[in-house]
Amino acid sequence: MTLKLYYASGACSFVPHSMLEMAGATFEPVAVKLHRNEQNSPEYKAINPRGQVPVLVDGGEVITQIMAIIAYIDAKFPEATFIPKDPLARGRFVEVLAWMNNTVHPTFTHIFMPHKFTGDEAAQAAIKTHAVGQYRTLMGELQDLVKKAHAEGRDWLGGVHCGPLDTYALTLLRWGTIAGINPEDFPELWAHVQRTAQVPAVARAMEREKLQLSLYKPA
Amino acid sequence: MTLKLYYASGACSFVPHSMLEMAGATFEPVAVKLHRNEQNSPEYKAINPRGQVPVLVDGGEVITQIMAIIAYIDAKFPEATFIPKDPLARGRFVEVLAWMNNTVHPTFTHIFMPHKFTGDEAAQAAIKTHAVGQYRTLMGELQDLVKKAHAEGRDWLGGVHCGPLDTYALTLLRWGTIAGINPEDFPELWAHVQRTAQVPAVARAMEREKLQLSLYKPA
Repeated sequence: MTLKLYYASGACSFVPHSMLEMAGATFEPVAVKLHRNEQNSPEYKAINPRGQVPVLVDGGEVITQIMAIIAYIDAKFPEATFIPKDPLARGRFVEVLAWMNNTVHPTFTHIFMPHKFTGDEAAQAAIKTHAVGQYRTLMGELQDLVKKAHAEGRDWLGGVHCGPLDTYALTLLRWGTIAGINPEDFPELWAHVQRTAQVPAVARAMEREKLQLSLYKPA
Repeated sequence: MTLKLYYASGACSFVPHSMLEMAGATFEPVAVKLHRNEQNSPEYKAINPRGQVPVLVDGGEVITQIMAIIAYIDAKFPEATFIPKDPLARGRFVEVLAWMNNTVHPTFTHIFMPHKFTGDEAAQAAIKTHAVGQYRTLMGELQDLVKKAHAEGRDWLGGVHCGPLDTYALTLLRWGTIAGINPEDFPELWAHVQRTAQVPAVARAMEREKLQLSLYKPA
């Protein structure tokens, strides 16, 4: 077996994890336990010096960055048709994916790891509070994308079948529930995420990662 | 003329701006003046509701997000060979591009616009100071990429000729000089950026944007 995916339970590595399941790929999933700080171990840093997941290893090649891993899996499994081939449709796909990666994802980082942005504890609390408000706004934007897809007669965010944009949306809404956001405040998005979770390949990845779809607890 | 690029002087829109010059494209450059807050005008928000640059308009299609615009220009001008076609080489290219976009770029946002992360002024100052230190580390990582390319016998970051990774590096180091970082602290990176600025297509985009390569002022 030459294909190996390093993932952390519930992290954005869930997106390539479900892609490999959808593609029917033979791969070795390797769990990196963040609560044990394994991502900063010398062994892991020898693979990815930035200490992040996901990492895809194909033979002797190490690929980091979710944007690059998604593009690579798409090219390696063309029959799975993850990313549209047409330039404009491809642009539209990357537009949503990049926004999830460079806007929604880092906003959650401000909630979950405010210490990454300052050592000052009062400032960390201010950053976190501000980011929760922003994250709620972004969940509204994400729900608008689901509504737009439905209005255009598409069942899924990126094309005719479930793909990386849907599993990224699942991951981001799930993070929102950790941040105290009630998924029922976004009913169309919540329904979409629940439907995504029922796709057999996605369900297999969720089971391996032992994921609960919502961690929301009413105050 | 059907191709239109909305850019702001010195912003990351410089990357697609120089790509269009490199491709020899016929396009209409439209300056968005951030100091006049034009990105938040109703006219501009009708084009991009997020109020960001760059935006590429091709006929009736509006494309946002630099990652998507770069992919679209690459597909539209295949003879310019901006992004390698081979899956692994393409993955390597996207790996660097995504890191610039989701890590280096947002770190500068914490320096330049700390008010985006909290309304608390003391917390803003703490965020800014922390981010300048991080940005310096990232410039070191960027310089390592230049050294790696040279060690592998490549003159440019993304392939056999100057391309988006080089002009993004130029933009990011130029931002560093605004943040008080002396470009001479990173001599190989600084030499690479100066060489990039001399490529005729890049020089044309710089002239249109009226860009000085370094805004560093010794304290």
